[in-house]
Amino acid sequence: MVGNTFGKAFSVTTFGESHGGAVGVVVDGARPGVKIDTEEIQVQLDRRKPGRGGVASSRREPDRVNILSGFCDGKTTGTPILMILYNKDADSKAYEHLRNVFRPGHADYVYMKKYGIRDWRGGGRSSGRETAARVAAGAIARKCLQHRGISLLAYTRAAAGVWCREVKPDVIENNALRACEEKASKEMEARIANLQKQGDSAGGVVECRIRNVPPGLGAPVFDKLDACLAAAIFSIGAVKGVEFGTGFAAAEMTGSEHNDQMDGNGFLTNNAGGILGGLSNGEDIVFRVAVKPTPSIAHPQQTVDHEGCVRTVEIEGRHDACICPRIVPVVEAMACLVLENHIKRHAALMA
Amino acid sequence: MVGNTFGKAFSVTTFGESHGGAVGVVVDGARPGVKIDTEEIQVQLDRRKPGRGGVASSRREPDRVNILSGFCDGKTTGTPILMILYNKDADSKAYEHLRNVFRPGHADYVYMKKYGIRDWRGGGRSSGRETAARVAAGAIARKCLQHRGISLLAYTRAAAGVWCREVKPDVIENNALRACEEKASKEMEARIANLQKQGDSAGGVVECRIRNVPPGLGAPVFDKLDACLAAAIFSIGAVKGVEFGTGFAAAEMTGSEHNDQMDGNGFLTNNAGGILGGLSNGEDIVFRVAVKPTPSIAHPQQTVDHEGCVRTVEIEGRHDACICPRIVPVVEAMACLVLENHIKRHAALMA
Amino acid sequence: MVGNTFGKAFSVTTFGESHGGAVGVVVDGARPGVKIDTEEIQVQLDRRKPGRGGVASSRREPDRVNILSGFCDGKTTGTPILMILYNKDADSKAYEHLRNVFRPGHADYVYMKKYGIRDWRGGGRSSGRETAARVAAGAIARKCLQHRGISLLAYTRAAAGVWCREVKPDVIENNALRACEEKASKEMEARIANLQKQGDSAGGVVECRIRNVPPGLGAPVFDKLDACLAAAIFSIGAVKGVEFGTGFAAAEMTGSEHNDQMDGNGFLTNNAGGILGGLSNGEDIVFRVAVKPTPSIAHPQQTVDHEGCVRTVEIEGRHDACICPRIVPVVEAMACLVLENHIKRHAALMA
Amino acid sequence: MVGNTFGKAFSVTTFGESHGGAVGVVVDGARPGVKIDTEEIQVQLDRRKPGRGGVASSRREPDRVNILSGFCDGKTTGTPILMILYNKDADSKAYEHLRNVFRPGHADYVYMKKYGIRDWRGGGRSSGRETAARVAAGAIARKCLQHRGISLLAYTRAAAGVWCREVKPDVIENNALRACEEKASKEMEARIANLQKQGDSAGGVVECRIRNVPPGLGAPVFDKLDACLAAAIFSIGAVKGVEFGTGFAAAEMTGSEHNDQMDGNGFLTNNAGGILGGLSNGEDIVFRVAVKPTPSIAHPQQTVDHEGCVRTVEIEGRHDACICPRIVPVVEAMACLVLENHIKRHAALMA
Repeated sequence: MVGNTFGKAFSVTTFGESHGGAVGVVVDGARPGVKIDTEEIQVQLDRRKPGRGGVASSRREPDRVNILSGFCDGKTTGTPILMILYNKDADSKAYEHLRNVFRPGHADYVYMKKYGIRDWRGGGRSSGRETAARVAAGAIARKCLQHRGISLLAYTRAAAGVWCREVKPDVIENNALRACEEKASKEMEARIANLQKQGDSAGGVVECRIRNVPPGLGAPVFDKLDACLAAAIFSIGAVKGVEFGTGFAAAEMTGSEHNDQMDGNGFLTNNAGGILGGLSNGEDIVFRVAVKPTPSIAHPQQTVDHEGCVRTVEIEGRHDACICPRIVPVVEAMACLVLENHIKRHAALMA
Repeated sequence: MVGNTFGKAFSVTTFGESHGGAVGVVVDGARPGVKIDTEEIQVQLDRRKPGRGGVASSRREPDRVNILSGFCDGKTTGTPILMILYNKDADSKAYEHLRNVFRPGHADYVYMKKYGIRDWRGGGRSSGRETAARVAAGAIARKCLQHRGISLLAYTRAAAGVWCREVKPDVIENNALRACEEKASKEMEARIANLQKQGDSAGGVVECRIRNVPPGLGAPVFDKLDACLAAAIFSIGAVKGVEFGTGFAAAEMTGSEHNDQMDGNGFLTNNAGGILGGLSNGEDIVFRVAVKPTPSIAHPQQTVDHEGCVRTVEIEGRHDACICPRIVPVVEAMACLVLENHIKRHAALMA
Repeated sequence: MVGNTFGKAFSVTTFGESHGGAVGVVVDGARPGVKIDTEEIQVQLDRRKPGRGGVASSRREPDRVNILSGFCDGKTTGTPILMILYNKDADSKAYEHLRNVFRPGHADYVYMKKYGIRDWRGGGRSSGRETAARVAAGAIARKCLQHRGISLLAYTRAAAGVWCREVKPDVIENNALRACEEKASKEMEARIANLQKQGDSAGGVVECRIRNVPPGLGAPVFDKLDACLAAAIFSIGAVKGVEFGTGFAAAEMTGSEHNDQMDGNGFLTNNAGGILGGLSNGEDIVFRVAVKPTPSIAHPQQTVDHEGCVRTVEIEGRHDACICPRIVPVVEAMACLVLENHIKRHAALMA
Repeated sequence: MVGNTFGKAFSVTTFGESHGGAVGVVVDGARPGVKIDTEEIQVQLDRRKPGRGGVASSRREPDRVNILSGFCDGKTTGTPILMILYNKDADSKAYEHLRNVFRPGHADYVYMKKYGIRDWRGGGRSSGRETAARVAAGAIARKCLQHRGISLLAYTRAAAGVWCREVKPDVIENNALRACEEKASKEMEARIANLQKQGDSAGGVVECRIRNVPPGLGAPVFDKLDACLAAAIFSIGAVKGVEFGTGFAAAEMTGSEHNDQMDGNGFLTNNAGGILGGLSNGEDIVFRVAVKPTPSIAHPQQTVDHEGCVRTVEIEGRHDACICPRIVPVVEAMACLVLENHIKRHAALMA
């Protein structure tokens, strides 16, 4: 009940701060006998790394994952898997001058209010670096899902006010924003570069599509599949909204427009976004995620320090001007965790 | 891990189907010594009842709550509280002809796929009636929150394409839609009446504002306050989207626009919607909920039956043409459950 | 995390006090499609009823179970099953004079210390009557286990200082003590009748044997099968000890005596009591339970009241002089819940 | 629900195998602001180490704990604490010849049956080495309990058939067995040395006494304090029985003998062992643990290999002939975890 564990059947406990000794994760509940390849996990971790062209932060994180338990002779054994990434490039001097200051848009203030103490070095536990642990855990879930034939793909649908009008899978990993359309990606990059020059940043929308999900996943009434996915996605920093299928547009539709009718081959439309009554219906699961603009900006901002005195801060340093491309693999990872959990939970129910 | 229990510290387990013997809830974890007044709970239940003018269903549900355990001499005792509502007006004959048919937009199909069996009478467990149990549980949480000085208010922000431009609390309970602006409410009603005549229905947006929440509620990293609220709200049927503060609009903002700056009195703006880094920041918590149009419509729709044969259905009967006003008290109830849980979880952490 | 829910995959939430409106249980996670027969459940409930000859209490509890949700057309649907027993023979007047007095050996004092309030009517939540809910839930688990070929049998192994030297299954339900040997049962009855005449009571040992458990059930490292069974059994009032296989006698054995050696057909001995390293090993699971003497005795005892004044009490009324025979079906029920849970958890792990 | 996490409010997740990369633990829920001193934790870990005179194994485990997250400036921050012990003296060659053989009394067979794969190196996850993680976690809980004034002491009450007749705290850490009486300790050592010469081993009884526990800890009905303690203790390998207060002796007592009467100063006796109705009653909590003889013995034993062929094994190597002294700090650690959890859970309930 404490908050750093996710999932009841495929259970993931993360730990670590931006500038402590390490970040990492214990995965409990992975099926025994699954081949684990460190490189496969590393591929996902590398996708989360900063440094995607001009739009990204320049922190060099080697982020090599170490697997220290739960496998033997190259396979999972059914016991907890510890994956750890040591913090090597953690220079907290850059944060020394912010030690007593609450950065706007960050969790500094609320951590202090909650805990009465805070790790001021690089955001501590609230740092985006924590999500590396999720990506590592997600890579194992992803592998299990692949065996089941389930695949998923996330991408930047919009950034800095520019929307991709179509989804071209091949384009995604070939542009800095992980946008799903080439022309839009160029415009996004231009706008973001411009914002960055002004010491500013941009928000965006990440979309995720999951294919080949068997119908019936999800657990009424509280652990509906969309409820669990939403919780998983909202647990990622910077997320301000989640919608499935037609989402907020559904509010302006009528029942006759919105209902997905059926014939002998399944649903004729997918307004539901693949989830009906909280259960997967066999169609693609589609959801969108509102991502706020990066709060770390060079622009001067007014805030207060630990003593309540007003201060003006300019957050210098290596920060992504738009974090959508880095959130993409995290969204995928969290979606993998949710699905693997619900597959196992369904198996338990039907056993 | 099964799905019908919500909350780890103020734990709520609901049961019951639309046309079974009863719906109800076991509340485990309420503070001992709290005065429980059946009528206070009934007030909330009555808000959820159908029959709000022309827009609502005409099923007569007496819905009298019975408290059968967990209290003594008018007070909670710290033991589980059973609240039960017997199903008296449950005439399942109206559903007999739909016994083998999957109603579009309903959970019929996915329940059959998941369980291999389904309670065809009135939607069974997926019926909106299940939410009465949540409202009863929420009424107890609400009482505890009141003692803490926390209050909350939900209302219909938009319906049938009409948006309220301002929030007038006094208006809310005085119009059938629970809209927060009088003029808009009239237009909504007119449009919905028109849709209903055509055998159709309308969606909308419900907004919720929670006042006086102490800073620091929520549990990083997975049980962030917004993650828990989102899960709670998405567990309500018909919800297709949830957003906090600026929500999806944040995607088009810049960091300098979006960051909430501070002075000695607190935050200068509330773009965050009262939650930063997953923790309450002391500002009002504000979120919006996308509600899909009622799926039960008289309009002819194509679907399939249990044998996979194509069928055309027209769902007659007593159904709300727009469920926003009935979702309002359910949204409030779920928000109360989340808050009471996190207050208790915070107390445990700091003990 | 609140305490009235047991089991993660086959989840049971009980509610109710001795003299409130009802006792009962919500069972969440039972496999859909299982035929539920009220009478089968009633058979188990009747085994728990008082009134087994001279040794038992004379309270007349009709204890008819009502199933109000989670089934349709005679089968489980996969949704929560509410089973409720209304309190009809609940006359709290007999407890009026004990309202402010802490009965020795009872939970009165500690409930007051914990909650600051207590339901003084018949022990409230700490009453043995609460276990009726467990027996009802266990009956559903038992049915599921039967389909899997697993059976179990509990019985009184010792009472009032008399031990059964052998286990004769046919004898068990045919004597008031549920002792497993006829001659011993007669001696027990005589001794207990004598104690009762003196206003006193007797303790005993209940033994349980579970047959046909597949190897590999249990979840290292904390949810070992014996750890879960022990927690389940210690959650029954009056239990002061639990041991598996050789139990405390193992403390005086050597490794060469205690280790169960193997040949091609399995284990040559069963000193382990069917559980090795926290996992079932395919042998019969055997455990014993120390049951304290009934605390409600007519014998004058010294205690204090709510104001801390010394008082002398003689607990009159309808109380079992030895509760072993009534604990027998509760032990079976709890064992069923543990096993059904671990079967489902194993299915989830291997999915 | 997977099994490697213990505790709902002070939550501990362990990982690691005897001969993998590391063993360790993530502690989630420790109060922020507590001074953590690595040396204090190390003291407890050193108590668990082998090498206590002739009776113990000779494996050299440096077992230096590394704290890699959850603290800043020497204090806990409220975020998860990773403590890790790297496996440096892990030579799995000694186990090579046992790779396909199920050692009697060990978990080899059941792990293979459960998982279909097993880490054959030194017992893998079922190794006693896993308990080092618990001791590290327990050290943090112990520190928190010390601040609350709660202290606890475990010791060997009996071993190799020799019982200590009294409890002399000063003696405990000054003899190899951690026996609580000097004369008995000498006799135990002599007997065990003799057994070891014969290639055999001894069992024993560990007793634990917890002082200054406030009344009212524990959560009826399923998470009774004794139920939770029993589960915690049974989760330690080699435990075959647990009893509280009079324990199994209660079975032969009468109610008038067993009930603890009260006067204005509290209880006159402590037959209950400090727990009544599943809640602490303010008296010392006292429980005893039956420990089976070490299964690793040089004595030739019959078993089978992975192919089911009968084999004779003699387990050579560095093994404790009686593990009671090493179980003592583990029992203390688990008891600390249970208490700290229930203190926090009680705080949540009353919040």
